[in-house]
Amino acid sequence: MSQYTAAGVDIDAAIRAVEMMKASVRATHTPNVLADVGSFGGLFALTDLPTNPVLVASTDGVGTKVKLAAQMGRWEGIGHDIVNHCANDILVQGARPLFFLDYIATSKIVPEHVAAAVTGVADACRAIGCVLLGGETAEMPGVYTPGAFDLAGTIVGVVGRDELLPHTDAMQAGDLLIGLPSVSPHTNGYSLIRKAIEGRDLSQSFDDSGVSLADALLLPHKAYIHEIAALRKAGVAVKGLAHITGGGFLDNVPRILPAGLSARIDRASWTVLPLFRKLVEWSGIDNTEAYRVWNMGVGMVVVVGAEEADRVRAALSNSVVMGELVASDSSPAVYLR
Amino acid sequence: MSQYTAAGVDIDAAIRAVEMMKASVRATHTPNVLADVGSFGGLFALTDLPTNPVLVASTDGVGTKVKLAAQMGRWEGIGHDIVNHCANDILVQGARPLFFLDYIATSKIVPEHVAAAVTGVADACRAIGCVLLGGETAEMPGVYTPGAFDLAGTIVGVVGRDELLPHTDAMQAGDLLIGLPSVSPHTNGYSLIRKAIEGRDLSQSFDDSGVSLADALLLPHKAYIHEIAALRKAGVAVKGLAHITGGGFLDNVPRILPAGLSARIDRASWTVLPLFRKLVEWSGIDNTEAYRVWNMGVGMVVVVGAEEADRVRAALSNSVVMGELVASDSSPAVYLR
Repeated sequence: MSQYTAAGVDIDAAIRAVEMMKASVRATHTPNVLADVGSFGGLFALTDLPTNPVLVASTDGVGTKVKLAAQMGRWEGIGHDIVNHCANDILVQGARPLFFLDYIATSKIVPEHVAAAVTGVADACRAIGCVLLGGETAEMPGVYTPGAFDLAGTIVGVVGRDELLPHTDAMQAGDLLIGLPSVSPHTNGYSLIRKAIEGRDLSQSFDDSGVSLADALLLPHKAYIHEIAALRKAGVAVKGLAHITGGGFLDNVPRILPAGLSARIDRASWTVLPLFRKLVEWSGIDNTEAYRVWNMGVGMVVVVGAEEADRVRAALSNSVVMGELVASDSSPAVYLR
Repeated sequence: MSQYTAAGVDIDAAIRAVEMMKASVRATHTPNVLADVGSFGGLFALTDLPTNPVLVASTDGVGTKVKLAAQMGRWEGIGHDIVNHCANDILVQGARPLFFLDYIATSKIVPEHVAAAVTGVADACRAIGCVLLGGETAEMPGVYTPGAFDLAGTIVGVVGRDELLPHTDAMQAGDLLIGLPSVSPHTNGYSLIRKAIEGRDLSQSFDDSGVSLADALLLPHKAYIHEIAALRKAGVAVKGLAHITGGGFLDNVPRILPAGLSARIDRASWTVLPLFRKLVEWSGIDNTEAYRVWNMGVGMVVVVGAEEADRVRAALSNSVVMGELVASDSSPAVYLR
């Protein structure tokens, strides 16, 4: 049948195996899921809705990190990458994840590669309490270069209208910027990274840690849902969250600030991951510009009142006070020092 | 800035223009949309929810139809394709569309091409009362072949649990299968189509209609939401809907039938679109197999009680009674005659 693949979608055994895998993940997961293989769409029963519910949705891809994953033949991690990237994007609006759908497309389906990526997606979903509701696996020879692979996904979450973040009205000069550690470049800046590492041996360590460059670069995007839950549990009033993705600090932090406030960030307040120091050196980019490309070791920035410092530290011992909000006449900006 | 594109996502003027276009589409569309450019995720306020609301979600791509679109340099139609394909997939579960998010990825962003595709997406969304809530545009050189383009999307709709389709319990032998006309191969069977048309002049007509082969093949997927609404308005009790996509009649109709019932379809009951007759001839495939690959001129199959025939005909004059449900001992199947 696969010679007559419909719209390039291979409906043979490989795809069915992936669908069965997703179905088993869904089946064991939650009573909210009503449908299974055979349905045209995934069904998610809305229960325990907040007052004035707002759905928050985000579609994203893992970008050119997939090229590095393909080069190393390691697919599971990018499954985590796409789920966690999307989950963080709706977390910063205050939403809890409901469900996720993946899109995998490639020139020629290799069942083991697809299965590994979907396993990563499924595991990452489970870790954050999100249902893997469905998705699409497409084989498109001639659209993708031989061996190339793309992975995108869509997450849908929910939040009560009054709980939507950021609470820009509550922000004021003197509020603290709390940094939560990242573990790698996450899913951003890989076009520049691939230039920076050109010609280097990825199996070798780049410092005395013994961790290979490939391992360091492919470490998946971290999900921050549990850290933010811990803050809330500790009674911390979160005023805003900025996910440090494409555009780094310089572009992402201002997105959550009201007119009249800017962010002053002290680069000395945290230890930049050794990997980023190497990437800055190898790429030759300006140090300030690096804070627009990479997360430099901080994947999520939390805005809280100055009075919350002790509670934050008690709840998340690895967090750092990385700066504060300051009054400014300009549009919201970031001042690095 | 674009040399430092984050995760391959080009955040330069071209992308911003696309984001602005989407924002303007959203802004003029509905009070349900709360957020705009700058937000990390799209915000959709849930109002007028049915009792026991169920979200229905579907991710899909347009498959290798994009290759034909790229070859002809015509991008707007595939925007309609992806939206209508997804909308039909949730329609068959009884859902009305709430919002859509697109994913466009290419080797090198050509603003005019992206803008045309997004215009198609936006127009198609507007036509079915669906919000274009967001999406992602990614530039990934080396993943996509030069000039290649992929377009995928995710739709989310809602339905009350008691209104979920199919109503398999209500189906019985003697129920009618109503066919709603398609306009083209829609979004399915294009891998085989591209083989079938190899070496042919796409600018020429394939019959005496004067319509070029390219025009006939690129005619967008039809949305059936308005036809189904007309049936409901006429008081027709719809028991089930099968979207004729990849897998044609043979795979899609059985998906909505209960054990003990099969579908008998009379091929003489409707006029197969001339394009499909040519495609069968050129590809050399078996006529029966064609009903597993293409829609053959019927894009949606509706199951109704035999007593509804007159009301269906009055509401939709272009519909055809194409067959009926019959008792069968086997798993649900389709018998073509």
